[in-house]
Amino acid sequence: MTDRPDLLVIADAADPELDALASRAQVRRLHPASNGLAAALAEADAVVVWNCVVPGFEASFDEALAATGGLPRLRWVHTTSAGPDRLLFPGLLGHPATLTCSRGVLDVDMAEYVLTCVLALLKDVPATVRLQGASRWRHRRTRSLAGTRGLVVGAGSIGTATGRLLDAMGVSVDGVVREPRPAAAPFGALHAPGDLASIVGEYDVVVVTAPLTTATEGLVSAEVIAAMKPSAVFVNVGRGPVVDEEALLTAVKRGRLSGVALDVFTVEPLPADSPWWDEPRAIVSPHLAGDSEDFLLRLQGLLLEQLQRFTAGEELLHVVDAEHGYATS
Amino acid sequence: MTDRPDLLVIADAADPELDALASRAQVRRLHPASNGLAAALAEADAVVVWNCVVPGFEASFDEALAATGGLPRLRWVHTTSAGPDRLLFPGLLGHPATLTCSRGVLDVDMAEYVLTCVLALLKDVPATVRLQGASRWRHRRTRSLAGTRGLVVGAGSIGTATGRLLDAMGVSVDGVVREPRPAAAPFGALHAPGDLASIVGEYDVVVVTAPLTTATEGLVSAEVIAAMKPSAVFVNVGRGPVVDEEALLTAVKRGRLSGVALDVFTVEPLPADSPWWDEPRAIVSPHLAGDSEDFLLRLQGLLLEQLQRFTAGEELLHVVDAEHGYATS
Repeated sequence: MTDRPDLLVIADAADPELDALASRAQVRRLHPASNGLAAALAEADAVVVWNCVVPGFEASFDEALAATGGLPRLRWVHTTSAGPDRLLFPGLLGHPATLTCSRGVLDVDMAEYVLTCVLALLKDVPATVRLQGASRWRHRRTRSLAGTRGLVVGAGSIGTATGRLLDAMGVSVDGVVREPRPAAAPFGALHAPGDLASIVGEYDVVVVTAPLTTATEGLVSAEVIAAMKPSAVFVNVGRGPVVDEEALLTAVKRGRLSGVALDVFTVEPLPADSPWWDEPRAIVSPHLAGDSEDFLLRLQGLLLEQLQRFTAGEELLHVVDAEHGYATS
Repeated sequence: MTDRPDLLVIADAADPELDALASRAQVRRLHPASNGLAAALAEADAVVVWNCVVPGFEASFDEALAATGGLPRLRWVHTTSAGPDRLLFPGLLGHPATLTCSRGVLDVDMAEYVLTCVLALLKDVPATVRLQGASRWRHRRTRSLAGTRGLVVGAGSIGTATGRLLDAMGVSVDGVVREPRPAAAPFGALHAPGDLASIVGEYDVVVVTAPLTTATEGLVSAEVIAAMKPSAVFVNVGRGPVVDEEALLTAVKRGRLSGVALDVFTVEPLPADSPWWDEPRAIVSPHLAGDSEDFLLRLQGLLLEQLQRFTAGEELLHVVDAEHGYATS
């Protein structure tokens, strides 16, 4: 039981939505590039970290571990991401603090972003924007989403929300999950990851919402990509390394896929010399799928709930299962 | 009763989906710019005309009327559009031929295109495409669609399909109809056109799917536009003249609307010097909302059904009501 825990928020922006945390904690916010990060970690009972700013976090964490003999005060680390992959480094994995993630609060926005990408590809929106830039009126035929078949790779919290929206659009949706269970709406069938290459050719829309774990790294392999329909559209909002990006680029360039939308990459930010930027059949976005204004309000709600539980000594929500590499509930 | 009617198809492309019509008619296809159009009209029992190629049609029709003493053979004219506005010219209105339109067959694609535009505006897709063109990774916060309020101006066949998709996305949807009736799903309420200015400020998403009639021309007036929420997004897939384009452009430029998507304009093709091309908060598309590959298959089905009815002397579907200016069923 902690009355008003010392909470360190590591973020590069001061989001007013997070001001509310001050009602339940002594909040200190630091920029991830701050020199004082290791010292601040040593004085924190709990840490909230934005996944996108994690790179400096591991080094500071290790420095603080060494300086304090194991960060004895720290009891909780929360990532604002749904996928905790970047926090699964040895120093934190070996520390007794509870690691939690933002499962659930990104679902609606991620699902909406996936649908945005699928529709933008089918309705040729990137070409529309480019033609507009050239003041050119050029009529084209586009494609319908209703009546197609969709596959969501990673039928967890975000994947299920995505499946629901696709289903509502008249798409017949199946899923891929680590441990296949009986299919329930919105999924007509749930497949095992090992079956991906043999089934993926049946789908018009293939979406990756899977977290990055030892089991998903490279899951969408060159073999899987080669088995996709040439008319298929592919969207990745999970994690870059789940997909063989080089094989995907080759497939897109050769017209063996009609379009792709990538919000995540193995290297982020995507380097300025990446060939993806110039690919007209690709929509390249900067890891923004879940980041709506509403997400911050939902995150605020989750963090207030977590702080109440933390202060009362109750079990936290969305604890990361180190074996799976994500939160299973 | 006509055994195999002479059917004139006025189209600028030879769509293979329309080859099937030859099973029920003697089909002749002419390009709308053809010199032989008036002569061909004189020999036709029925005409199918693509709305987008109509400009040459009225002059040829009038020429054929004069040359034949009133086009005595012609008994049916069908437009591939949902809105017959461009066929409501004196020569055709005064002719006894039945005028029918393609009500229904565009619904799904139009609704999908509206949702595409709404999501693209909320999720900042045009900026993503432009930033991609500059190889720039720039994270932004976007907006959620779920939980917003939507208004569909023109709650007919296309508008209802649009309302259904918005409803499925978690939008609370109301409609505007010429003759208000008790609201039924997907609409929570149905308003009269005259109430538009007083209610439009309550909505986050405003969509025009209305046909162009004497009652809808200028319906989305400067007053209505001024009453919209500054955070609203606005989409027009109906007809250009339903909206005061100049007032809309001024509102967008001054940030009194967050984004607009226009698929239809008062002058089409949109002239190369139109200020709309350069407006970053606008998505400008070339009247393609309904034109998917699947639409052609659905149109084929409708035309085969119409030909069967025409040949059997039965009532045709989707007869245009000259008083209303569109087909009411």
